[in-house]
Amino acid sequence: MTQRILILGGGFAGLFAARELRKRLPLDVRIELINAENYFVFQPLLPEVAAGAITALHAVTPLRRLLKGIKVRKARIQEVDTTRRVVTIFQGVQRRPTEVGYDHLVVALGQETDLSRMPGLADHALTMKTLEDARRLRAHVIERLEHADITQLPEVKREALTFCVIGAGFSGVETVGEMKEMIDRSLKYYPNVWPEEVRVVVVEYAQNVLGELTAKLGRYAAAQLEKRGIEILLGRGVQSATGTRLILSDGTEIPTRTIVATIGNAPSRVVQDMPLEHVHGRIKVTRDLRCEGHDDVWSLGDCALIPMKDGATERSDFAPPTAQFAVREARALAENMAAALAGKPMKPFRYKSQGALASLGARRGVAEVWGFKLSGFPAWLLWRAYYVAFLPGFQTKVNVLLNWVMDAVSPRSTVQLRSYTPPAARYVHYRAGDRVFEAGTRADGFYTVIEGAVELTYPDTHTGEPVTKRVTAGQHFGERMVLGQERRSGTVHALEDTKVLVLDREEFLKIADAFPVMRGYFQGYMKQTYDIDWTPGQR
Amino acid sequence: MTQRILILGGGFAGLFAARELRKRLPLDVRIELINAENYFVFQPLLPEVAAGAITALHAVTPLRRLLKGIKVRKARIQEVDTTRRVVTIFQGVQRRPTEVGYDHLVVALGQETDLSRMPGLADHALTMKTLEDARRLRAHVIERLEHADITQLPEVKREALTFCVIGAGFSGVETVGEMKEMIDRSLKYYPNVWPEEVRVVVVEYAQNVLGELTAKLGRYAAAQLEKRGIEILLGRGVQSATGTRLILSDGTEIPTRTIVATIGNAPSRVVQDMPLEHVHGRIKVTRDLRCEGHDDVWSLGDCALIPMKDGATERSDFAPPTAQFAVREARALAENMAAALAGKPMKPFRYKSQGALASLGARRGVAEVWGFKLSGFPAWLLWRAYYVAFLPGFQTKVNVLLNWVMDAVSPRSTVQLRSYTPPAARYVHYRAGDRVFEAGTRADGFYTVIEGAVELTYPDTHTGEPVTKRVTAGQHFGERMVLGQERRSGTVHALEDTKVLVLDREEFLKIADAFPVMRGYFQGYMKQTYDIDWTPGQR
Repeated sequence: MTQRILILGGGFAGLFAARELRKRLPLDVRIELINAENYFVFQPLLPEVAAGAITALHAVTPLRRLLKGIKVRKARIQEVDTTRRVVTIFQGVQRRPTEVGYDHLVVALGQETDLSRMPGLADHALTMKTLEDARRLRAHVIERLEHADITQLPEVKREALTFCVIGAGFSGVETVGEMKEMIDRSLKYYPNVWPEEVRVVVVEYAQNVLGELTAKLGRYAAAQLEKRGIEILLGRGVQSATGTRLILSDGTEIPTRTIVATIGNAPSRVVQDMPLEHVHGRIKVTRDLRCEGHDDVWSLGDCALIPMKDGATERSDFAPPTAQFAVREARALAENMAAALAGKPMKPFRYKSQGALASLGARRGVAEVWGFKLSGFPAWLLWRAYYVAFLPGFQTKVNVLLNWVMDAVSPRSTVQLRSYTPPAARYVHYRAGDRVFEAGTRADGFYTVIEGAVELTYPDTHTGEPVTKRVTAGQHFGERMVLGQERRSGTVHALEDTKVLVLDREEFLKIADAFPVMRGYFQGYMKQTYDIDWTPGQR
Repeated sequence: MTQRILILGGGFAGLFAARELRKRLPLDVRIELINAENYFVFQPLLPEVAAGAITALHAVTPLRRLLKGIKVRKARIQEVDTTRRVVTIFQGVQRRPTEVGYDHLVVALGQETDLSRMPGLADHALTMKTLEDARRLRAHVIERLEHADITQLPEVKREALTFCVIGAGFSGVETVGEMKEMIDRSLKYYPNVWPEEVRVVVVEYAQNVLGELTAKLGRYAAAQLEKRGIEILLGRGVQSATGTRLILSDGTEIPTRTIVATIGNAPSRVVQDMPLEHVHGRIKVTRDLRCEGHDDVWSLGDCALIPMKDGATERSDFAPPTAQFAVREARALAENMAAALAGKPMKPFRYKSQGALASLGARRGVAEVWGFKLSGFPAWLLWRAYYVAFLPGFQTKVNVLLNWVMDAVSPRSTVQLRSYTPPAARYVHYRAGDRVFEAGTRADGFYTVIEGAVELTYPDTHTGEPVTKRVTAGQHFGERMVLGQERRSGTVHALEDTKVLVLDREEFLKIADAFPVMRGYFQGYMKQTYDIDWTPGQR
């Protein structure tokens, strides 16, 4: 009977596993790959996409083009049943679930981000895991520059021009370096923004940047970043965040409207729910890359905990979550699976890192290759050469090179494409004393208090005298939009640290119009609270 | 005192007016331009962006780069007060309104799209006016190909592979031609889609395509499109649309999940609300491009009705809404304003069209220039040469040329970037008999009926016997999500032509959790309707 191999995930691990398997297995073995997007994203280029050095479409490659002879499905994974050997998925826009059977399952789902331990961070920080994250960050930074150029309020300008990156590992350092370069090169188009008004900060819990490299290279990287005006705050974690503040573990408050979190790696929900053995959220595999207790389930890449020697216990005994390792794991897995299918013995995975590279932006980098250490322009050039050689897909290589050439000879584009729509219902955090909104401003949402308390001040309907009201958990404010009001009549500020749910104006009005329960409730509420007669449907 | 000139709109008319004014006026005259986006979009290239021939970021140019010596604000215009000479705007993400004063106002806000006269069309059709529209269309078409490649349901496959464009003017013809080229070139990556399964249709109310050109060129264009497998339906308008059907004025039903409307030009709300004289939604101006009765308000471009001779009455007596005319109007306006400020006499606007060009995709075009008629490859080449010469911004020219070269020598990318998030609360239309959802499928939204009626069938909570219920305007279904249910337990179909409001699962659950009125209501409803005891907060 035809063997069916099913690969979950199309990152480095999944893509290369699929290709290596296709090379080694006879054509009657069916290989299938499921990924949330229909493209492969080369993660090391994300900071350059975020900084506009490479345009998003040119930085990625369609999976179907890279995976000849392999069935590709763009789908969300719902559930894995290792007993029935079936994976349940929702394909694209389909609402009907699809069951995909397998004989061998390869789990290569990487890691996601979990920021929930720091209050407000998940709701107010941007992340840098996916291509969409990178596109969002680029649009976000340009919006801040546009805002800073026109605002009349000094504190808003200061917040708009302060950019914080959390984490100074590879991702954090490359992101902060590229972001600074983009801002520096764009400032000439923003005549009201002075270079000294821009503050770019990277916050790191450890005592050095790029902990993966030697201390000396880390110090070089830190010195380079500082020379370019980037502040480095070491030995500090994040306590909490709001839309305008980042609060560090030592109590430092940074007024900012841009927080990029490159920390908080965590397993995805699907991986957590799999009936497999987990250690620290990663799937425990044997040295031949199969999951403990399952001969037909394999795992590799960032989601797997792969021992590099028997009786591994130390962190250094396990394969690190890097692209370099994922690609080698993919080859080892393919060889082992070919051996298993042919009834031959398997080999334990072993690999020694060849080195590490980081770009610092502005044509500077650091590198440690086969024991040699490099820094500055040569390291940056090596970084580019290595990654373009590594990038799968000939056309994507050419596109990336063309983007680099154009970027070197012409100004960086400040075009702000729309890339991310915040959820219509979203949580927002305030610190005690923060202004929520003010009379006269645009009435853009309906607020329900989840935790904490706010104070609302508004003019009495009849006398015009100011009325003050405390609004606490379960209560709401901003509901006058049902009357058709486009501007706020009241002013609201937080009395305590407060979390609210904001529902966008358009969505709120559609529901309030369509759903009789809401209509009836607000009619009564308007009468009772403000003595306003409102006939639903009239605005 | 310093004169302040304020230009509303950054399309062809506004951009060129600003540049022509800056050239002619002394530097102490302050010129300011307000636009919704921070870039200039070259509209004729939009179909190529939608088809992926040019990447979005490379097709547009930052306004700040094109407008040296001119203040640029990215803002939404709220209100124009011609008495106080003040425009109220909301800048970027700011909620505080900003008032901008002027001595002379130039209105160049173009046209928007109004599809509201055809039921369902506004809620189910894509448009082709903005860069975001083009990006959305590209992602939408690729999603349909991905879906068609994996679906098991023949009727879904047929709907997914039928692409309809409404209107066969320049925009419609270029869109349908480029879309067909993209699909043809992408099919090799979708092994389960056969070329003969793809249906691309263009619907036009008139009896010929490209009515702006001669009948002979129109026939040539139609023949070229048909040769490439595009169906042309002439003499038919649109009656209505749903998510899976386009219904034409003659009753023809086309099963489709892609409707692109290039019809329905209409003034924007801001233009309509201006205290100026309007004719058919356009601002009435004199031959010197000032608004009737206002010496300090000027208008040009698609939003203005510009007479080309005294006593103009016929359609041909007025300037047509094309880029070619907008650019000439901009020059005339700048000359007249310079004359007015210097107290010199103004000149009436006059211009004779130099011709027209259309690309048909697949390296074919039609052109009529200075009376000469051209078709096929030479016309297509002329189209590209003319537009790249016309494109403002040197870097953008180079980028577009590079994109074209790469597109000629390499396959079209099928990468599906996310570009559009549908509103969390949106209206959906069904025809009598349509299935709304089915037991077992993903529970993705909460439905309130606005018009019409649906029938809901679900198993009784205790006996499991099927229960049938009619749900009409003001009533709702799909509310079991509050219990944490991820799949539908009931099946719903439309009994009549029905309009519903769908609220996305995530937003619905956030509100139902946070807002006590909703919590309380659903608790009672669950008990009364299904005899289910639900404690809010428990799922």
